[in-house]
Amino acid sequence: MVRTPRQFKEKQDIEVKTEHRVTKIDPKEKKVEVVNLAKSEREWVPYDKLIIATGARSRRLNIPGSNALNIFTLKDLQDGIRIRNYVDEKRPRRGAILGGGFIGLEMCEAFRLRDMETFLFCRRDLPAGNLEREISEKILKELEENDVHFMAYYEPVVFHLNSHGEVTSFETTQGSYPVDIVLIAAGVIPNVEIAQEAGVELGKTGAIRTDAAQKTNLSDIYVAGDCCEVFNLISQDWVHTPLGDIANKQGRVAGENGAGGKATFLGVVGSAAFKVFELEVAFTGLGTRAAKQYGFDVDSQMIEAESKVGYMPGAKPIFIKLIFERKSGRLLGAQMTGKEGVARRINTLAVALHQKMTIDEIARLDFAYAPPFSAPLDPILIAAEQAAKKIVR
Amino acid sequence: MVRTPRQFKEKQDIEVKTEHRVTKIDPKEKKVEVVNLAKSEREWVPYDKLIIATGARSRRLNIPGSNALNIFTLKDLQDGIRIRNYVDEKRPRRGAILGGGFIGLEMCEAFRLRDMETFLFCRRDLPAGNLEREISEKILKELEENDVHFMAYYEPVVFHLNSHGEVTSFETTQGSYPVDIVLIAAGVIPNVEIAQEAGVELGKTGAIRTDAAQKTNLSDIYVAGDCCEVFNLISQDWVHTPLGDIANKQGRVAGENGAGGKATFLGVVGSAAFKVFELEVAFTGLGTRAAKQYGFDVDSQMIEAESKVGYMPGAKPIFIKLIFERKSGRLLGAQMTGKEGVARRINTLAVALHQKMTIDEIARLDFAYAPPFSAPLDPILIAAEQAAKKIVR
Repeated sequence: MVRTPRQFKEKQDIEVKTEHRVTKIDPKEKKVEVVNLAKSEREWVPYDKLIIATGARSRRLNIPGSNALNIFTLKDLQDGIRIRNYVDEKRPRRGAILGGGFIGLEMCEAFRLRDMETFLFCRRDLPAGNLEREISEKILKELEENDVHFMAYYEPVVFHLNSHGEVTSFETTQGSYPVDIVLIAAGVIPNVEIAQEAGVELGKTGAIRTDAAQKTNLSDIYVAGDCCEVFNLISQDWVHTPLGDIANKQGRVAGENGAGGKATFLGVVGSAAFKVFELEVAFTGLGTRAAKQYGFDVDSQMIEAESKVGYMPGAKPIFIKLIFERKSGRLLGAQMTGKEGVARRINTLAVALHQKMTIDEIARLDFAYAPPFSAPLDPILIAAEQAAKKIVR
Repeated sequence: MVRTPRQFKEKQDIEVKTEHRVTKIDPKEKKVEVVNLAKSEREWVPYDKLIIATGARSRRLNIPGSNALNIFTLKDLQDGIRIRNYVDEKRPRRGAILGGGFIGLEMCEAFRLRDMETFLFCRRDLPAGNLEREISEKILKELEENDVHFMAYYEPVVFHLNSHGEVTSFETTQGSYPVDIVLIAAGVIPNVEIAQEAGVELGKTGAIRTDAAQKTNLSDIYVAGDCCEVFNLISQDWVHTPLGDIANKQGRVAGENGAGGKATFLGVVGSAAFKVFELEVAFTGLGTRAAKQYGFDVDSQMIEAESKVGYMPGAKPIFIKLIFERKSGRLLGAQMTGKEGVARRINTLAVALHQKMTIDEIARLDFAYAPPFSAPLDPILIAAEQAAKKIVR
């Protein structure tokens, strides 16, 4: 999609071998076993430096019927094309999505755009269960307004198939539902097997352990992307956060260091955004629950404000929840939602997190004000000002 | 527009006296002379604490014919209504705008929306002459694409009036132009006269001198808004930046302190945004020229990137110029323009300025990424990464 093997060769003299699967790493002899899939040939290729960028794969369900023809996961472009082809060909009328995270929520919109009756099955009582309840409730409302059936507390039991190997009904602990297509959106599993077999150490998350230089425990082996952990600067803990922008940054550092450089990737604060129909959702840092688990003395403040001056066309309510340390007032996290001006606003608070700013410092920030874009007091400043009143110093 | 005198009374027990003009301050006796305009009565009103919030007024031109009926300025709502009424009634065909700042540029759009042939007269070669040339050039392009005639290097000489007292032609050093309506957008003058007369000290900008507590040099007299100066945290200098959001914050601090509190307003970094037709323009901190004047060893970097992932609908080019200290890499200012995702992006760099962050620290920030809102590397991160290569440590 982005660059062809030929472009790599011509622009950077990098040889890209597609349809070659690495099956083994020999870190002592510094070589990898490669299978040429087209020719079914196997060879050992030596390396001076090795970068592991094996990514992650979609988690599947271990219940009967999970291999049905019309059960899909969505990780890469090929998955997307497969789903689209199936929908084009079979015109499913009822779609079930299992999992209320980013992918599940975004696919609700895709299913509804294809006029499917859409069921979102979730193990918890709200979608996006890792977010603050107030934010998840707004997401639920948006789903309902777009005629998605949200099914809470559901545990999958079995997929019943027809003679063509297609799911026709989905049985759960709460009942059975006729379905024409199923998307499993249950998160990803890092692809660590080959690395682990070679003695590359994993972290407690199950992803490959690394450091600020993107090194593994084995010499001359680096790692980047969804297969490895990343350091969270707020919790000061290594986590598995498989996101494209993090993978991109880790890849640059691994590449530079593999080529003899001295780059570092210090870590993330935990920023992300997604869109559910017309609702923008964005967050950074820790949520209340996570912050408490990490031992912070947590307080929080939720506010509602206008995305821009009320008399301007397109002004929409915006909801912001700030999570902060009760005594110091230090910002620990922020979550926002609304139909306008959310996703790009969150990054100011990401900077504040990087800088360990307090809520009252945030309230004093000088933001650009113009009626088409914000109110004189930006929603973030209003949130910080309200929150600052709660600080107990 | 926002609150009536009655609401002030009922909600907060504040007595608002409209149509009362303060004509004199007696800081020794602690009283003000007030003229009741409706009754033409004059009285002295005592005070314990006084807050001066006299604002600013539009600068007018001192050339013959300046008092014509169809020459307008635009500072408040009444000005806007006057202009609209004149346009509704007289249907002017040709509009001249004098001044290429925010107001002049925004009014170009208003004039064109009323189908006027629009001439923007500017003393310099580019509009928004305080911004970086690269940004001003984009603004010029946007004006031209919207059929605004941009007239550079023009000095006004005289307005020729007809027998009804209306301008019919505008004579400049570069020629004479038939016009049906004129807007003077030549900036504002702080309303300091009454304060100055009472012994309130002015700063070198001509606006009222103040401090972080919004105090004046006279005891029990505070000041807020467009009539006073504000501290710029980057140049470490007191400046006159008459903007609504700053006035709002100053007012809160002056009010709190007048009521016995201990609030402070530390200052601004110089953030602002405006819109010229479809083009968003936003900036924060110092431009190259100002930074040099303040003695910084300045370098800069201009980049072009996509406002979001290229395959998403609505992705547009975005231009960012970062201004930074050559050796330390400390960010001194940033200016951005583009048709999508500009104004709300600048605030991340405003936070960076408040925190005295360096370009390479900015390049490491963890921003929320999702295709509808940004590319994996946000334009700001791309700009910072490019700029970081230039730092000479």
